Amino acid sequence: MNNTELTEIRWTDAVQLASPHPYVLVTTVDQSGRPDAIGIGWFTIVSWSPPMVAIGVAPARHSYSNLEQVPEFVVNFPTPRLSRAAWACGTTSGARVDKFKANGMEALPSGQVRPPTIGGSLMAWECKVVQKMDTGDHRLYVGEILAVKGDLSQSAHLYSIHYRKLVSVDHKAGTIVET
Amino acid sequence: MNNTELTEIRWTDAVQLASPHPYVLVTTVDQSGRPDAIGIGWFTIVSWSPPMVAIGVAPARHSYSNLEQVPEFVVNFPTPRLSRAAWACGTTSGARVDKFKANGMEALPSGQVRPPTIGGSLMAWECKVVQKMDTGDHRLYVGEILAVKGDLSQSAHLYSIHYRKLVSVDHKAGTIVET
Repeated sequence: MNNTELTEIRWTDAVQLASPHPYVLVTTVDQSGRPDAIGIGWFTIVSWSPPMVAIGVAPARHSYSNLEQVPEFVVNFPTPRLSRAAWACGTTSGARVDKFKANGMEALPSGQVRPPTIGGSLMAWECKVVQKMDTGDHRLYVGEILAVKGDLSQSAHLYSIHYRKLVSVDHKAGTIVET
Repeated sequence: MNNTELTEIRWTDAVQLASPHPYVLVTTVDQSGRPDAIGIGWFTIVSWSPPMVAIGVAPARHSYSNLEQVPEFVVNFPTPRLSRAAWACGTTSGARVDKFKANGMEALPSGQVRPPTIGGSLMAWECKVVQKMDTGDHRLYVGEILAVKGDLSQSAHLYSIHYRKLVSVDHKAGTIVET
């Protein structure tokens, strides 16, 4: 085998080496029903049956405030066509801006939860928060997935390279699709 | 925007659409120091400062037993050269087989924790368990990352497509590297 010696590296380099991360848009609402969408690279499935997903959200985020008010969220997998809006959702705050209007995103009604589903997504997981845990500088929200919707005719979704750019990867062959 | 209507899909199709997932080999040891390595697609960074990572492990796994005995682990990012061994670690149990010997993997001593680092990895995160939480049919172990080692001359690591095959993706350009 290849026995290359590993050396100590910086955490920021580690995040680069771990890239690309799958990148999703998580939608939430506040008590009045006003929606927000945040770009998230820190998430993972955490249970097969029942299906559950965990997302990491920093307390400074507007989505954190929404999740504390209404413990429901939708994990939307953006397609390459949504890449500009998806990038904007990761780099602006929903406290001052309506991200849906500002980025031309369509908020479709979800079936089981109050936060909307983003039109044109490859897939959307509708979740209710069943557990949460503080982990360092983030809060981990664990959602039970109540509904799973998708578009089986599409095949690519977005990945973040160290939060500096987005690429899209095809889920069938693993090949890159140009955005 | 693209307003394609989403329809209900099966959870197994959802896991396919969410693919490829980054895929890591997590090493653990039992109380006697005997090492094991498990292939994991369910993990995510959960804190920037201090750096922390969460991994999902099913109770039936040998690694679960190890983590309950010695709450330390190493997250190894396998390179394309390790793909055969990496696949075997995801499909066999360490209860009966020494996965290191069986798959020609080299167990290097880690600096801060007892579980070994896998030789030839792109990167290794040495972790001690600081929190855990049961999520459905898995247990989530949150590790504080005590040491980060890597090989900045390499650029590709492995991704799982619905636990059916592994592909490798370059962390710089996002391009696929043939294994």
